[in-house]
Formats: sequence, C-alpha cells, structure tokens
Amino acid sequence: MISEVGLSEVQIFLDYASVFIFALTGALVASRGQLDIVGFIFFAVLTAVGGGTVRDLLLGREVIFWVARPNLILAAVAAALIVFLTAHRLESRYRTLLWLDALALAVAVPAGVDFAIGAGYGAIIVAMAGVITASAGGLMRDVISNEVPLVLKQGELYLTAAFGGAITVLALDRLGFPHGWGLIACGAVTFGLRAGSM
Amino acid sequence: MISEVGLSEVQIFLDYASVFIFALTGALVASRGQLDIVGFIFFAVLTAVGGGTVRDLLLGREVIFWVARPNLILAAVAAALIVFLTAHRLESRYRTLLWLDALALAVAVPAGVDFAIGAGYGAIIVAMAGVITASAGGLMRDVISNEVPLVLKQGELYLTAAFGGAITVLALDRLGFPHGWGLIACGAVTFGLRAGSM
Amino acid sequence: MISEVGLSEVQIFLDYASVFIFALTGALVASRGQLDIVGFIFFAVLTAVGGGTVRDLLLGREVIFWVARPNLILAAVAAALIVFLTAHRLESRYRTLLWLDALALAVAVPAGVDFAIGAGYGAIIVAMAGVITASAGGLMRDVISNEVPLVLKQGELYLTAAFGGAITVLALDRLGFPHGWGLIACGAVTFGLRAGSM
Repeated sequence: MISEVGLSEVQIFLDYASVFIFALTGALVASRGQLDIVGFIFFAVLTAVGGGTVRDLLLGREVIFWVARPNLILAAVAAALIVFLTAHRLESRYRTLLWLDALALAVAVPAGVDFAIGAGYGAIIVAMAGVITASAGGLMRDVISNEVPLVLKQGELYLTAAFGGAITVLALDRLGFPHGWGLIACGAVTFGLRAGSM
Repeated sequence: MISEVGLSEVQIFLDYASVFIFALTGALVASRGQLDIVGFIFFAVLTAVGGGTVRDLLLGREVIFWVARPNLILAAVAAALIVFLTAHRLESRYRTLLWLDALALAVAVPAGVDFAIGAGYGAIIVAMAGVITASAGGLMRDVISNEVPLVLKQGELYLTAAFGGAITVLALDRLGFPHGWGLIACGAVTFGLRAGSM
Repeated sequence: MISEVGLSEVQIFLDYASVFIFALTGALVASRGQLDIVGFIFFAVLTAVGGGTVRDLLLGREVIFWVARPNLILAAVAAALIVFLTAHRLESRYRTLLWLDALALAVAVPAGVDFAIGAGYGAIIVAMAGVITASAGGLMRDVISNEVPLVLKQGELYLTAAFGGAITVLALDRLGFPHGWGLIACGAVTFGLRAGSM
C-alpha cells in the first residue's frame, strides 16, 4: 500500500484538519435531521472525504487520499462521535455549522490547490481543484439530505470564496512569494470572503 | 479487453447474483413510480452496478467490473424486463422491495469485502468497501427518485448490517477459519441484522 | 500534461460543441432558478462536462477530457456568461432549454460512442458510453436543482433517443459504411427521436 511518503507535512496537516472539520459539519447536518449514530457517521465521513475524493478521481491520482491513509476515516468517525455526544448542548446548531463550514472551506481550498500545483497542472485546473475539493463533499451532503445546496444559496459567496482563494495562491506564486505564504493567504482570503457573506 | 481470468468463481457468482437482485429492486422502484420501460431499465442498471462501480473507482481497480464483463449489464436489463412484465401482480411491491434489497445486501457485502481483501487492503478499507458496495447503488437510486434514502432511515440497520458483515469476515479470517466460511458468515450476519430490523 | 495529440479533429469538434451547448442548458436552468452569476457558471460547467467525465471515469481514460484540455472549461464559462446577459430576453426559457438539450444530445451521443469504439470496446459498452455521455450531466443538473430528471420523464424518449443513436452507428459500422457516415446518422437519429417526442 501507499503510505504518506512523498507528501509534505503541510499537505498531511491540511488533509487531517479539513477532514475533521468537514466531518463535524456533516455530523451537525445529521444532528439537525435527528438521525441515529450510524447516520452521524455516514454524513461525517461523506462530507469529510467527498470533496477530496472527487478531486483525486478527476485528477487521476493513483490512490485516493483516504485509501492511502485510512486513519483519516477514523478521524471523521471521531468527529461524528463528538458531535453525537455534544450537539444537543449547542444553542444554535445551524450557526455553528456555518462557521465550521467556513473554516473547513478555508482549509480545503489550499489543500486542493496545493495538490494540483504540486502535480504540475495549469491555472484553470488548479482553480477547479480548489473549488471541487471545497464544495463537492458539502454538495453531496446537502443533495442526499434533500436540502438546498449551501454552495448555491444566493449571497453566500461560497464558490466565489473558494475561487478567490485559488486565484490568490496562483497570483502570489507568480509574483515570486514563498509558496507557503501563498497557501496561508489563500486560506485567509477564502475565509474572509465566506465569513463576510454570512 | 480484460476478461474474467483471475477472478475466483465465487467472486463471479457473487457479482452476478448481486447485480441481478439489486436490479430487481431498482426496477421495483421504477414500478412504484409508474415509469416506462426505459425508466425500469435505467433504475435496474443504476442500482445493480452503482455500488460496485463506486467501490472499483475508489479502490483504483484497473477496469470497472461491468466494463470488463458487459454481460452483467444484460443481466440487469433482464431483471428490469421481468419486473416490468410481472410487477403489477405483486400484492405489496414495497415489502417485496425490502426483502429483495436485504438479500442483495447479503450478497453485495461479501462480494465487496472479498475483493478488497484479495487486493491486499487493511481492515478499515475492507469495511468501507463492504459498506460502499452494499449501499451506493441504492443510495443513488433513492436520491434520483427523490425518496428518503433507505440507508438513512432510522431503525433500519442498513449500514449497520453491512458493517457487521464486514467485521465478521475480518474476524473469522484473523481467527484462522477458511476464507469461504468467513464470506458465508458475513452474508448471514448481514442478512440477519437487516432482516431483523425490518 | 496530455495534449490533444492523437484525437481526431471530429472528436475535438464534437467535444467543444457538446460542452458549449450543454453549458447553455445548464445556465438556462440556473436562469429559471434565478441564481446569481456563480450559480450560472456552476450549472453550466457541471452540465457541460458531467456526462463526459462520468464516461471517462468508467472507461478508465487516462486523463479526463477536460483535464487534458482545460479550455473546454472556459467554453462552458463563456456559455454561462452569454446566458446570464441574455436569458431575460427569451420569451420561453423552458422551450429553448428543451431544444438546446436535444441538440446537445445529438452531439454528445456520437462523441461518446466514437470514443468507446476507438478504444476498442464491444457493443454493450459502446451503447452505455453513448447513453452515459448524453445523460449523466443533465441528470446531475436536475438532481442538484431538485427537479424531476428530464431523462426519466415519461414520453420524452430521452434515453431511448441516445440508445437509438448508439445502435445506429454500431449497425452502420457493421454493414461497412464509412465511420463518419455512421456518426452523422447517429446524431440525426438521436435528434429525430428526441425532437419528435417533445
């Protein structure tokens, strides 16, 4: 099996953080729908790895990221259990969901963009990778739970934020800034646009 | 093209049985929705090969199972025609659907698990393969026909049954039982849990 | 990166035409839903490349067609902008949508079929490739926008038209006609069946 050899530590950290936070949002959707524990785990795992899975399939990655590193699934399951045990204490699950989702977005966009740049793709595909990594998991979560997809709600600047983040890192790379700075700026721009629209 | 060389006879039988029974359930959904013959074939084929297709894509199988063995598509079409000609005679299509779906589940879980074990994956991915093979086809069927996904209905123990079956074969393998026994026990546990919850 | 080397000019033309016209239909759906410009682009790109993407994933194409030729994404975005600026002038967006969709179908079926024949697949997989290329993008468009999938509406002969087109080119190839004639006849049969049912 393929291990984590060859991946930068930044990439590994971004993958874990994005999986865990997206899993929290999936579990919160399950909580709003009053599903049982299996439903929590289902939506947590789907939301957590959905976007990265679609990205990896489309870009032809040899092994899907969570198949190479199955512990990511355990991280998503852990997030589901945490929400299952604590969600009833939250005053407003929907607000919590929105803020966590914005945070996950700000982690997933740089993760997707960084992978595509590292694989040698041009600007259009890099932007697509950022947007898809950020949105496909939440899109599947919303379609399956029969809600209006968050990515399509007017005035939410969801896809716009992802696209803005991807453009930022591409621009800073071209201007000669260190790649790490570009990734941080990418996350900041994504979060700023998304949070500002909420 | 790739042929069936290298697949065990058990694997081939499980694939055909799972495709045929899942196709019956897809056609029954089309029947409940009073679709035309093309709708029957659409849902039969989608439900029949959907789960295995997602499994193969995620695990990076070189050729999707039904692309390597197109006759599986004909088996699904045959199931659609049978239901199209006979479904109006059924007293309760929904009960029939549930029981056939439980049967298909009990075949698909060992099929998915067996493939993942044979490909050398560890326990987490093997369990995911079993659950995905068993549920992704029905999930797509329900999402497209705009029904509440059966896999998410409370108290149905759908995903739980698939997971229990996968755990069973992993445990029996580790305890040294012949692999074939593990697969049979896997199907029995899956069917027992699912049927017991209906 | 992979370029367009090795693709026939016919294949390239069909891909661009199919992407552009399907993108128009996606943008028209966004227009009916009164989405913002990002929603137009989202549905345009999804509808434009969805069917071909599923086809490429299922048939194991080494690089998804639009990843190899990212300009196709720009063509879809251009279509979204055109519809965004002009759709309010259309008397009947739904009739326009239906006719454009029939046209896109008549281009996508030969494109999908031609690719599968060129890759050496047999009749069943070739027919599946034609039907999937033609329908998967529109299906995702309709499922995400929560409409009854056009491909499943009774009396619309949608999948039937795609299947009829695929059969046509297979038959003409076998009878010894030039392959280009078969592709043209395929498009004509597909369009005739679909338009005749509207």
